[in-house]
Amino acid sequence: MNEDFQNTDVIYGKNSVLEALSSGSREINKIIISKNIHSDGKLDKIKELAKQNGIVFQFAVKEKFIPFQDYNHQGVIAYISPIEYMNLDDFIEQKKEEIFEKKASLVILDGVEDSHNLGAIIRTCVCAGVSGIIIPSRRNVQVNSIIEKTSAGAINYIPIIKVNSLVNAIQKLKKSDWWVVATDANAKDNYYDINYRDMNFAIIMGAEHTGISKSLLKLSDFTVKIPMLNEFNSLNVSNALSAIIFETVRQRLSKIKK
Amino acid sequence: MNEDFQNTDVIYGKNSVLEALSSGSREINKIIISKNIHSDGKLDKIKELAKQNGIVFQFAVKEKFIPFQDYNHQGVIAYISPIEYMNLDDFIEQKKEEIFEKKASLVILDGVEDSHNLGAIIRTCVCAGVSGIIIPSRRNVQVNSIIEKTSAGAINYIPIIKVNSLVNAIQKLKKSDWWVVATDANAKDNYYDINYRDMNFAIIMGAEHTGISKSLLKLSDFTVKIPMLNEFNSLNVSNALSAIIFETVRQRLSKIKK
Repeated sequence: MNEDFQNTDVIYGKNSVLEALSSGSREINKIIISKNIHSDGKLDKIKELAKQNGIVFQFAVKEKFIPFQDYNHQGVIAYISPIEYMNLDDFIEQKKEEIFEKKASLVILDGVEDSHNLGAIIRTCVCAGVSGIIIPSRRNVQVNSIIEKTSAGAINYIPIIKVNSLVNAIQKLKKSDWWVVATDANAKDNYYDINYRDMNFAIIMGAEHTGISKSLLKLSDFTVKIPMLNEFNSLNVSNALSAIIFETVRQRLSKIKK
Repeated sequence: MNEDFQNTDVIYGKNSVLEALSSGSREINKIIISKNIHSDGKLDKIKELAKQNGIVFQFAVKEKFIPFQDYNHQGVIAYISPIEYMNLDDFIEQKKEEIFEKKASLVILDGVEDSHNLGAIIRTCVCAGVSGIIIPSRRNVQVNSIIEKTSAGAINYIPIIKVNSLVNAIQKLKKSDWWVVATDANAKDNYYDINYRDMNFAIIMGAEHTGISKSLLKLSDFTVKIPMLNEFNSLNVSNALSAIIFETVRQRLSKIKK
């Protein structure tokens, strides 16, 4: 990585750069565009937005992209300020109205290791209007360039809350009028047996192979499973979350009580 | 690839090989294990199942794995018979009881291009008890080694039906007591407004950026969307399917009418 930009992240590809420019939530230090790529609508838009916002863009020979050859950069990279993680107290303060109205929601990731999965989870959470995502500062995969790319820019639309201890975070949430729902293959209840209307809920998702830590399971108010209609029981974690999170959307949007 | 095995597929990694051995649905020609990997439970199980089933396994020096270095092969590969695609008539014949009881389901993929997505979709379909997956013989990504791996072996538990024309396939399904549900961001109805109980249904999913072809939309009995609670409207296709397909599971498993 360029020495001038040690405290920055690099994002790759036209969509990621365009989303970072459009959302305005990240400081972009510089955009580098390959001299060897053809102009297109997206590239024009990138240049236009960069000009409007006074962001430097430079054209570089393709050799400049060699350090990034393992990424699908499409001839466009940007140096941007790192994701700003939120702390839990600030999140609770920022969302206090939503919490008061019992309409807030959180997804807590306990050891999700795969960047592509985290990227897909972030997209699903943004689409479903989830208020924030909590990740532990250790163990969990950290937000990196691959996630920026696989989240297709969604990362700029949702607070990512980093905590030192998930146990402490959950205890704090429970004191602040949150209900905690853990997913566990051995649960009795199905995820759709819970009434998600009129409560602030936090859904904990575990790693694909090991599940949720016992200490977190014990702290949870509800434990739910996704019913499996086949002996083959191996749902991708982002797909599992999607099933659950859109059930909460269904319930909250539909007026008829089940 | 080894010249002796031109009509075979190669699968990589302990889980994929183990699933292929356990399911018994694929003919395994040979298993190659690296001399440089340590024994573990999964490897022991692979050797045991191979012995039981009279399948040759060989130990090879790590140089033999160089052609496969781009894959996370974990020192184990297997040459297996290619996926056997089913044709639609055979599928309808094989599932006639399920169809008669109005309990059959299908997922139709119209131009899903990404191997990781197809792998995740296959896993979700198997977990949710979907009866089969239809892909077009052109345009759609074909089942390959990456999909074998990302599907974590689920590919061996569900018929993959390859058709020359999705239009013809849908017309045939409609004549055989199937109802066709298309997903489209501009639909009026939400996916959970449909009653999936007591009908054979086929859900069409389109490519992430272009959606479903107009000719297929026109043929569909229902058009549904996933409600988006945010301006950012870009759900990963496997996550979109997961939300819909587990809603069908919820409805079919729960006795209470909505």
